[in-house]
Amino acid sequence: MSRQLFNPNITSLGDPPIPHVQKAARAYDGSRGPLIDLSQAVPGYAPPSLLLEALSTKAGDPAWLGYGEIEGEPVLRAAYAGDLEQTHGSTLSADNVMITAGCNQAFVTAVLSIASPGESVMLINPWYFNHQSTLTMFGIQTTHVTVDASSGFLPDPEILAAALTPDVRAIAIVSPNNPTGAVYPAELLHRLFKLCVAHDIWLILDETYQDFLPVGHGQAHDLFNEAFEDHLIVVSSFSKSYCIPGHRLGVVVAGTSTIRQMVKIMDNLQICAPRAAQAALAKCMPELGIWRAGNREEINRRAAALVSAMDTLPEWRIDAMGAYFAYVQHPWADESSINVAEQLARDYGVVTLPGEFFGPGQERYLRVAFANVVSEVIALLPERLSA
Amino acid sequence: MSRQLFNPNITSLGDPPIPHVQKAARAYDGSRGPLIDLSQAVPGYAPPSLLLEALSTKAGDPAWLGYGEIEGEPVLRAAYAGDLEQTHGSTLSADNVMITAGCNQAFVTAVLSIASPGESVMLINPWYFNHQSTLTMFGIQTTHVTVDASSGFLPDPEILAAALTPDVRAIAIVSPNNPTGAVYPAELLHRLFKLCVAHDIWLILDETYQDFLPVGHGQAHDLFNEAFEDHLIVVSSFSKSYCIPGHRLGVVVAGTSTIRQMVKIMDNLQICAPRAAQAALAKCMPELGIWRAGNREEINRRAAALVSAMDTLPEWRIDAMGAYFAYVQHPWADESSINVAEQLARDYGVVTLPGEFFGPGQERYLRVAFANVVSEVIALLPERLSA
Repeated sequence: MSRQLFNPNITSLGDPPIPHVQKAARAYDGSRGPLIDLSQAVPGYAPPSLLLEALSTKAGDPAWLGYGEIEGEPVLRAAYAGDLEQTHGSTLSADNVMITAGCNQAFVTAVLSIASPGESVMLINPWYFNHQSTLTMFGIQTTHVTVDASSGFLPDPEILAAALTPDVRAIAIVSPNNPTGAVYPAELLHRLFKLCVAHDIWLILDETYQDFLPVGHGQAHDLFNEAFEDHLIVVSSFSKSYCIPGHRLGVVVAGTSTIRQMVKIMDNLQICAPRAAQAALAKCMPELGIWRAGNREEINRRAAALVSAMDTLPEWRIDAMGAYFAYVQHPWADESSINVAEQLARDYGVVTLPGEFFGPGQERYLRVAFANVVSEVIALLPERLSA
Repeated sequence: MSRQLFNPNITSLGDPPIPHVQKAARAYDGSRGPLIDLSQAVPGYAPPSLLLEALSTKAGDPAWLGYGEIEGEPVLRAAYAGDLEQTHGSTLSADNVMITAGCNQAFVTAVLSIASPGESVMLINPWYFNHQSTLTMFGIQTTHVTVDASSGFLPDPEILAAALTPDVRAIAIVSPNNPTGAVYPAELLHRLFKLCVAHDIWLILDETYQDFLPVGHGQAHDLFNEAFEDHLIVVSSFSKSYCIPGHRLGVVVAGTSTIRQMVKIMDNLQICAPRAAQAALAKCMPELGIWRAGNREEINRRAAALVSAMDTLPEWRIDAMGAYFAYVQHPWADESSINVAEQLARDYGVVTLPGEFFGPGQERYLRVAFANVVSEVIALLPERLSA
């Protein structure tokens, strides 16, 4: 008799997971030492002072007070096209770039541009939870293929091909991966792209962690040198690379006809991304190459510190790790990862995200965002976790 | 044979309208004097220097670099709840407030929280074009009731009631209105709210121009003192009131159970609104009451200047006007408003938006955002428009 108040696509979603874990962390009494926060993906080092100064200057400059171009500030789009030439060997122009308010919004513009309600997008389980919840929110179905430690959490293109149904409009992947950290080899990315071309569907590639590839890895992929326009959308974030999540800047790279559709979406979502931060980042980006390379090395050191720390804990196992995250098997076979994560946060002051947030069958795992903390803090983990 | 590349809900949308008109304005050669831009709704006066300084300070403060609370910064939510007490006589708390990146995004969270694809939202024609395009983008149907000059562009609740169908989940209105400028009297807003309660649907009220009510007009409405939680969502913007559209801040006011659903949407859309600007606005809001009152008086003076200017042009007619906009009938009965607006912009340097952008049957109208320019510039209109 009572009417349904809300959209069932929204009520079916759980509450956002990260505040849930942060609540357990706030209940920690400090008795084991300072809180070790390995939960949200936030760089655990200072942003470049050059950028901080530019953010301040541009925010106080009346030039950036009005509405801007929907696609983003031309200076930032051009700067990022230049950056792509450095990082991806691409020859794309600013016309292939649209600026968004963070990578979640970039993903929103990507999926809305190519899938309508009732159609489907394929995700790789474990997935980034906001990908799944965003699709559900829009009434877009999700299908998934599960990967596990036996393949290094990398998907097999043949298994994906076999799982495709006619309603699947895109395969969405994350590399370097969230939550596992696994880095998809360039050759695998190429095969996944060709699979999408062969089935005339889209590959949506989330490269949020692109700046943190293992040192020596080389270029992430060469897909921008393919005829990618009608089959590839790449989304990424400036939050991690430049330590500015609070300023909300992300980016889409796509064919110009795709960008044209996305501009309509962006106009409806929020007209344009915040402008002063765009101007600040555009100004600093070309000068921050060495700073970014240094961060990459630092994150690599933290990865090594985590491996050393976990080596002393035989009941714990790192099943995957890479650019930013490790995907760690906890020792309690019959315990839900949510309970384990809550107890670790509340009683031991070690905050991680439970595997169950990332898909079905992930109860044995915790996601460890080791990039958040310095090696010296990572070295405290054995004492905490053995207790 | 060729597949459909994009989501038909997106391809069916026209390109965003404002850049279209701006393009015609750029083609103006200046021969008639400086460009008079009455198109986009951007305050034509400086923002408060207090706020500009705070924007700069907070943007350079590392405290706002990380992710923030999805609902928005507690300080801004509390400040806005306090402001609502002043402007609306409400006793709401920060728990009823969610901060978004602009009012378009506030509208997105509102409609997604209560309508799913295939359901419908009723709009009043002429409508704010992003309301219509946002609903279409999500696969939500729109039904509409047309209002005209005979009723001062105000909807009759009985006509709306007769037009309701079982799939309508909400009536979305804008007061003070965009594009007509018409201010819905408090008594009408109360009747529309009661209509929605009686039919157990939602009233979505966009109050973006709430700060610009005619001087002497009392409180906009008293709906927050009703049992509003399950039937009312109010969205608004800080862009116009504080002259900071480029910083992208808007707001939703709703019942706490509605906010809880909206938080899931906001998390998917962009995690949180940009933080430094939230902190700056929270700091300054309580001190800007006199400044805002002065703006209201200034906008009222501009309205009077427009009336005087148009009085000298018998072939032109102001059919509605109010808080920010006038809805003006142009002299060319057989000409489309798009052609008229383009010609005015390109050949005479007077930039307005064509009525056709705001709904069917609006060919005779131009929307004039008189708030954009000072009275002295408005006084130039007779010479330009008579030519």
